[in-house]
Amino acid sequence: MAMTVNQKTSAWVIGASGFSGAELCRLINRHPYLQLSRAFASSVANAKPLAELYPELATVVNIDLEVWRDQNIDQDPLPELVFLALPHEASAKLAPYFLQAGVVVVDLSGAFRLKELNKYPEFYNFKHPSPEYLQDASYSLMELIGDAELNNLISVPGCYPTVSTLALAPLIRENLLCEQQVPVITATSGVSGAGRQATLNNSFCSVSLGAYAVLSHRHQPEIAQNLGREVIFTPQLGAFKRGILATCSARLGKGVTPAQVEQAFQQYYQNQTFIRLVATPPKIAQVENTPFCDIYWAVQGSNIVISAAIDNLLKGAASQALQAANHKFGWPQPSGVML
Amino acid sequence: MAMTVNQKTSAWVIGASGFSGAELCRLINRHPYLQLSRAFASSVANAKPLAELYPELATVVNIDLEVWRDQNIDQDPLPELVFLALPHEASAKLAPYFLQAGVVVVDLSGAFRLKELNKYPEFYNFKHPSPEYLQDASYSLMELIGDAELNNLISVPGCYPTVSTLALAPLIRENLLCEQQVPVITATSGVSGAGRQATLNNSFCSVSLGAYAVLSHRHQPEIAQNLGREVIFTPQLGAFKRGILATCSARLGKGVTPAQVEQAFQQYYQNQTFIRLVATPPKIAQVENTPFCDIYWAVQGSNIVISAAIDNLLKGAASQALQAANHKFGWPQPSGVML
Amino acid sequence: MAMTVNQKTSAWVIGASGFSGAELCRLINRHPYLQLSRAFASSVANAKPLAELYPELATVVNIDLEVWRDQNIDQDPLPELVFLALPHEASAKLAPYFLQAGVVVVDLSGAFRLKELNKYPEFYNFKHPSPEYLQDASYSLMELIGDAELNNLISVPGCYPTVSTLALAPLIRENLLCEQQVPVITATSGVSGAGRQATLNNSFCSVSLGAYAVLSHRHQPEIAQNLGREVIFTPQLGAFKRGILATCSARLGKGVTPAQVEQAFQQYYQNQTFIRLVATPPKIAQVENTPFCDIYWAVQGSNIVISAAIDNLLKGAASQALQAANHKFGWPQPSGVML
Amino acid sequence: MAMTVNQKTSAWVIGASGFSGAELCRLINRHPYLQLSRAFASSVANAKPLAELYPELATVVNIDLEVWRDQNIDQDPLPELVFLALPHEASAKLAPYFLQAGVVVVDLSGAFRLKELNKYPEFYNFKHPSPEYLQDASYSLMELIGDAELNNLISVPGCYPTVSTLALAPLIRENLLCEQQVPVITATSGVSGAGRQATLNNSFCSVSLGAYAVLSHRHQPEIAQNLGREVIFTPQLGAFKRGILATCSARLGKGVTPAQVEQAFQQYYQNQTFIRLVATPPKIAQVENTPFCDIYWAVQGSNIVISAAIDNLLKGAASQALQAANHKFGWPQPSGVML
Repeated sequence: MAMTVNQKTSAWVIGASGFSGAELCRLINRHPYLQLSRAFASSVANAKPLAELYPELATVVNIDLEVWRDQNIDQDPLPELVFLALPHEASAKLAPYFLQAGVVVVDLSGAFRLKELNKYPEFYNFKHPSPEYLQDASYSLMELIGDAELNNLISVPGCYPTVSTLALAPLIRENLLCEQQVPVITATSGVSGAGRQATLNNSFCSVSLGAYAVLSHRHQPEIAQNLGREVIFTPQLGAFKRGILATCSARLGKGVTPAQVEQAFQQYYQNQTFIRLVATPPKIAQVENTPFCDIYWAVQGSNIVISAAIDNLLKGAASQALQAANHKFGWPQPSGVML
Repeated sequence: MAMTVNQKTSAWVIGASGFSGAELCRLINRHPYLQLSRAFASSVANAKPLAELYPELATVVNIDLEVWRDQNIDQDPLPELVFLALPHEASAKLAPYFLQAGVVVVDLSGAFRLKELNKYPEFYNFKHPSPEYLQDASYSLMELIGDAELNNLISVPGCYPTVSTLALAPLIRENLLCEQQVPVITATSGVSGAGRQATLNNSFCSVSLGAYAVLSHRHQPEIAQNLGREVIFTPQLGAFKRGILATCSARLGKGVTPAQVEQAFQQYYQNQTFIRLVATPPKIAQVENTPFCDIYWAVQGSNIVISAAIDNLLKGAASQALQAANHKFGWPQPSGVML
Repeated sequence: MAMTVNQKTSAWVIGASGFSGAELCRLINRHPYLQLSRAFASSVANAKPLAELYPELATVVNIDLEVWRDQNIDQDPLPELVFLALPHEASAKLAPYFLQAGVVVVDLSGAFRLKELNKYPEFYNFKHPSPEYLQDASYSLMELIGDAELNNLISVPGCYPTVSTLALAPLIRENLLCEQQVPVITATSGVSGAGRQATLNNSFCSVSLGAYAVLSHRHQPEIAQNLGREVIFTPQLGAFKRGILATCSARLGKGVTPAQVEQAFQQYYQNQTFIRLVATPPKIAQVENTPFCDIYWAVQGSNIVISAAIDNLLKGAASQALQAANHKFGWPQPSGVML
Repeated sequence: MAMTVNQKTSAWVIGASGFSGAELCRLINRHPYLQLSRAFASSVANAKPLAELYPELATVVNIDLEVWRDQNIDQDPLPELVFLALPHEASAKLAPYFLQAGVVVVDLSGAFRLKELNKYPEFYNFKHPSPEYLQDASYSLMELIGDAELNNLISVPGCYPTVSTLALAPLIRENLLCEQQVPVITATSGVSGAGRQATLNNSFCSVSLGAYAVLSHRHQPEIAQNLGREVIFTPQLGAFKRGILATCSARLGKGVTPAQVEQAFQQYYQNQTFIRLVATPPKIAQVENTPFCDIYWAVQGSNIVISAAIDNLLKGAASQALQAANHKFGWPQPSGVML
């Protein structure tokens, strides 16, 4: 289904004024098979050239954001592909309209990530308006789905769940972890993870390393769903712009050796372009502005610590969304992701 | 034994060019009962006014650093109290000379923290030169020793062990934690924790949030010794100057309630000047330049997370050393610590 | 007029939820002659314990903020001294009521800094409601006013004008600068200078070193008024919390020597507690959380550069306000400022 | 002279372990017409895979650094093009050997930037070993040299001179500035400008905004040479990794209008890919990791301030070097610079 360069596939981005949406615009703009036809913001205040909101994109991405209105779906010629970078509830409401019109939807919100309907009021504070789509949505953690086809509704994993799941899944799937010790994930995110809107919490003078949403963050059930086991997950906000570092602590099952750990990681990731198994603990800076997930592990006795890092806006959002789109449309996975 | 202001107790600081040593000088300089008689650096290069090394101290602390030479012990009138802010092995060698001369030694290194002799080659890379002092040294985590007297050799706890132990000890001492789940401590330190010396690791462009010394850090046995149980401890370096945030994850014993947790923390800390039990997760900035340890906890089902923060150079080093000295000499604990 | 410790002078802070107001509360709380009787916030949302807004103040400053209502002036027993840390226009309106009631007003806003009435609409966007007070207000740049008495309305200099004026005034007053070259001040402030309110401009991900209000900042006329000459002043916002660095570039008058420069600075500042003439260019960090202004200068041929730094919230606001109050009430200038 | 993709032009990078050298490797690695044949470090300690020094380059740039030895010039097949990212004096000695062998040299050091021989001992602390090359070296500030051909020795401008000259040259060349007022440039650089080597000055805890080398920096004569007039230039180090912000203050000549200023900038830069004339003062972050120089200006009366920003390692070093190489070899200027 790959397109020639002259016949690019048309794509929209809705929610383009936010950090992930703007990254999507930047990546699609240089994608060999995608055409960024239109980009939308939710509010009139942001209906301006994208480069006015993000001066670094001046002369790089030349597109004017339009205000999104629901009638756009009925009145306008639709694209083949739409990226939703919207608040969770907005995505949950909007996605079905595009799907019914035959448009492939890549949703970056949490609207279709959880399979259990009742988690939505508990963790997302809304009653899900489109429960019939939850089971069908393809959860696109690409390195772990193998050759599976993606449905027309693609749900891009959350940032913390991406890095946490990539760090722990090979060990859990291969039964290398002790059942009695609940794995612990302590992960620190840059401030862009909190979104672009100005709040006291993300104002410059307020930001300083600290935990938040302790034992109540909405990414906890997503991680548990991915891993098939309970975890203790603590998110922390750090005084930096981009990136997540996840430190995952667990214990190995009886008799499990470091060689088995190494083998598991190699088996899952040695052929994955966007996973780098690294020999020293990764620093946030080395994945900033990259589509990579860097993974390191160490074992001492039965204890194992896996340290993994991603750019929350790329591997944790926009570039991962493109990986999924590339897969869906049959393009090489690095298209527009890797330069 | 309290002195009048006119007859201050004489104190030396050896290792005053380093971060903790300089903080000690600053605190002693304003202490009501202590007199900073002399301050020493290890190298000739630092034998200059302290304020040349630390311009913020100009007109605040007016003292010239001298080069330390071992003959100072024999030739010079000695102080009543000496603070050692030296490399571990140097402290291990030097402390006995002062002790034999009847000087109270407050040692900020790791030289006398561990009770097991064989941990020194394993974790500190040297054979301990003064093993006979290990058992006698008083480990001065003041909030947990109650009214116990301190010996003449006072070993100030390490920075990570201070915050980690304060966070977990009440729960472990009161048997509130599940035995099967090894507690996990993931702690992030500012760069001052790595000392003042210039290295590639602490150069500005290298520093970025990342784990280090994974499952092999020398503070792990100290924490385990304090708590009487194994822990999985991962230190991280963050791109900020001062402070440590420790996130401690554990599981409660069967039937243990949040009320019991609250009671334990209250019981241990409600009368402690330098512990603040806080209602929201602490941020590093709120303890920076303070002598406090701020502690927060949350429970969900059987899971418990304790988030605690200190200034690594104060509560994790210099102000804690002064708390110990105040106790030893019978002065009120906040003397020179709190203003 | 100095008080004994047992009969402290009563002070209010209005605008205590902002950065400068909170710093004032902290300093007054430990002041030997002042009693922080009451502290007020402008909005109901901030009518809570100060330490809820500023967790670092927990157990240090124990005061509940009240909502300010204008009837407080008529109904309540008034203090001897009130500090206004309010928006400019609010101060301009409120100060006269206190003055008429005989209360000494120390105003930290720009409401009474400029002597020319018509600068207010031009630079502050409001018509001044109390023009009759402009001439009487004492502009309290303490190091430059000598023994002059302060009136009951004390106008604390702005942050940029404080550091810029201290850097340049001795040279201009002593006629050492070339008349033909307009002095240039390029000054970089930490984000706290923009206030506590959350805006897109001071959100963490937006902040990055850059100029703002180029050739139109309201501190330009204040600096020009102080110096008695035109200047080219460019403010910059930097990605740090506190502090201002001002780089002042000028040319010396014909035949002026470096010795004359040195003499001028010594003459003005050698006896000033809060000015440090330093031998290497000051870094922001060395004045952070201090009441000092550090000043360095270098001459090459006819060119002179003066580099000066302050903490914008202390020497540029709260501690400078206390210096003025101390002078007004006859207390030693360092009282409550220096520890 | 453009090459096909199959016959790429061979290039070496000498000094590849430094920040600029590593950036060169990264850019050349993705250049359509250049082949990174070999890369050299000066010291044995850095003779390792580039990605070990720069983990962010893992799987992106796969090259092993070799130790540079002078005999490489005589014994090995030489490339068509060599990039020198070496200390100034090393470049001054090495360049002639390559030139004599017919290799095009692009030198990123200061070795061939100044035309006046005696400036080298004064500002660079060495007697120039190859004075005969100084006049022939082409100073490659590409946006200002028009269609001029480049000689075989190409001297890439310094970082501060690049941004300062681009900001001021159009106004000076068009005679728009007042002759009596010496232009003032106050520029703040990220720490990468100080190089990769660990020193106390660039250690994390030392770095804080401050001026350095006041009135004695080696880029001052280079800027003056570029502009044909004296300037007062003050460099500042800021607590960020990359980027330079230059604030240039001057006065317009009598009767000069803002329209003339606008016209000058348009005339020089409207067709320049890597200059963006921007409507709001640029922030460092918007040029970070980009090859752009963003320029803003404002006029008030006779005063003019130009605020300009670049990435010091790209437009101030590596990408600018590639612009020059592209021009020399007849390739489109954005080749390998812009993606």
